[in-house]
Amino acid sequence: MMEEKSHLIDKELEAVLEKDGIKNLNDAAWYHMSTGGKRIRPLLAILTCESLSGSSEKIIPFAAACEILHNWLLIHDDVEDGDRVRRNQPTVWVKYGVPHAVNVGDYLAQKVYELIMRSKGRGVDDETIVKMFNAMITTSLKTAEGQAMDMNLRNDDEPTEEYYLSMVAHKTAYYLTVPMIGAAIVSNREDLIEGIIDFGMNLGPAFQITDDVLDLTEGKGRQEIGRDIKEGKRSMLAVHCLSRCSQKEKDMLIDILNKTPEQTTDADVSAAKELFEKYGSVDYATGVAEKYAKKAKGIAEEMPGNLKDVLNFFADYIVKRRK
Amino acid sequence: MMEEKSHLIDKELEAVLEKDGIKNLNDAAWYHMSTGGKRIRPLLAILTCESLSGSSEKIIPFAAACEILHNWLLIHDDVEDGDRVRRNQPTVWVKYGVPHAVNVGDYLAQKVYELIMRSKGRGVDDETIVKMFNAMITTSLKTAEGQAMDMNLRNDDEPTEEYYLSMVAHKTAYYLTVPMIGAAIVSNREDLIEGIIDFGMNLGPAFQITDDVLDLTEGKGRQEIGRDIKEGKRSMLAVHCLSRCSQKEKDMLIDILNKTPEQTTDADVSAAKELFEKYGSVDYATGVAEKYAKKAKGIAEEMPGNLKDVLNFFADYIVKRRK
Repeated sequence: MMEEKSHLIDKELEAVLEKDGIKNLNDAAWYHMSTGGKRIRPLLAILTCESLSGSSEKIIPFAAACEILHNWLLIHDDVEDGDRVRRNQPTVWVKYGVPHAVNVGDYLAQKVYELIMRSKGRGVDDETIVKMFNAMITTSLKTAEGQAMDMNLRNDDEPTEEYYLSMVAHKTAYYLTVPMIGAAIVSNREDLIEGIIDFGMNLGPAFQITDDVLDLTEGKGRQEIGRDIKEGKRSMLAVHCLSRCSQKEKDMLIDILNKTPEQTTDADVSAAKELFEKYGSVDYATGVAEKYAKKAKGIAEEMPGNLKDVLNFFADYIVKRRK
Repeated sequence: MMEEKSHLIDKELEAVLEKDGIKNLNDAAWYHMSTGGKRIRPLLAILTCESLSGSSEKIIPFAAACEILHNWLLIHDDVEDGDRVRRNQPTVWVKYGVPHAVNVGDYLAQKVYELIMRSKGRGVDDETIVKMFNAMITTSLKTAEGQAMDMNLRNDDEPTEEYYLSMVAHKTAYYLTVPMIGAAIVSNREDLIEGIIDFGMNLGPAFQITDDVLDLTEGKGRQEIGRDIKEGKRSMLAVHCLSRCSQKEKDMLIDILNKTPEQTTDADVSAAKELFEKYGSVDYATGVAEKYAKKAKGIAEEMPGNLKDVLNFFADYIVKRRK
């Protein structure tokens, strides 16, 4: 079943994005799109739609648009974060250069809207298309705001939990739930949107803070522990610890976080880790993540029968897979 | 009159783009937006609308969207081209860093659509809004395709006139005319769109090739002659010359163009210039530009009375101001 739906999405993507198009544009877009074939976001849109109205025909273009949104943001994120590897392959900017990577992202951002426009061919009326546009615009704006806040945090030597949580809410709440919101719109169930966003407002932090903790305990599949420390991320652990430790410890921790990944030694990572443990930052973050996860589950419980299952499936997936 | 309209646009821009918003996002966007206050694109949309329907009320959001489109593309272009100065000020990526510059551009790209969405508040119906979206999507896609081709050309040692002209058509035809297309849509004059695009398909090359020539004769206000040579641009002059000169001259010219701007000496610029003159490339390019300009004027002549004046005003402005 998942394979069949995945095929529908691939067909829709291929309809708007030529494989043999312009050099360093279409090939670069497909290079990136092909490395991650899970198509979880489109699937989420389709499942939500089926749980609400029984039909998934009308959501296919929007579902494919969510996949493109995801790929556009990853390509630009990799430029912004300087990440050289994604899904075990060189990132687009490494392979095609920063100038093309920026342009490919811009191109895909427009393909998001071209796809939504295609809903018309599946019998979606203009009023509904405008609402879908609106949901996508809001999502992209919030995500860009969150991204700016995230980058600001990395240079912030006095990060607050409040700013951290606001950043996470901006960056993840809409982004994670937009497939479901589009499905609610197309199914004439706009009454559910507020609840879905509320779900995202809790699932997002649960996911992100869990991710912060796992970096220190399991390494997030990056084959190293403490990558966030090397990258200087103001994770929930760092934010909590910095607000509790002594001035001397704070200076030391900031000093470690402000080093480039290459400069950061294993001893630095161990020192930061010890400090997090000393101030109970791991336990604290775990507790906060659990609180959010519990709240997200509570919201899911109040959703109509089949949608509840979809939300729970998604929550499990997101927390298990993390990045 | 122009001042009054400019004020209307500024109010519309301020309605969607907070000045005191997120650090390195809203401030960076306004930093860029404030450096160029001409607002020629919105003005063009308003004038076109008035020439067709007499009222400009409904076009204001789309007009403002065209200004944001322009600013988004400039911010990303500066990253892609490595340009450090625009309008006598440091470019956004120089002042805020590449990561924020990429994100600010993405943010503004979404503000384009948020603005179009605001048309609803001015009595524009959903059907018309969808058409406006469509025009903006097409424009942004064509421009990104043209940008990819432009970057490809810079690394092309066998550039053809055909590829050059296709690049220019992609990069400029829609981008220059989208304010007029939006105005035609809102004025229920979609019958004019084909002609307007055709106008752009000729004005764009006329503008770009004139720009190529001026770089060598007047220096495009950049206080230096031959900047394009330093940047290695495959201008119409270079493309023409490379297709006519001997293999030895070709190797020399490509060698000069492939140097970085810093590596290129004044003697290099003179040598390239001499080669262009030897093969009549300046005259050839001037002739081609004139052919396109004449065709653009011919198309303008066939437009309804007042719109004809707007197109001619715009053509004169574009050719005089160039960049």
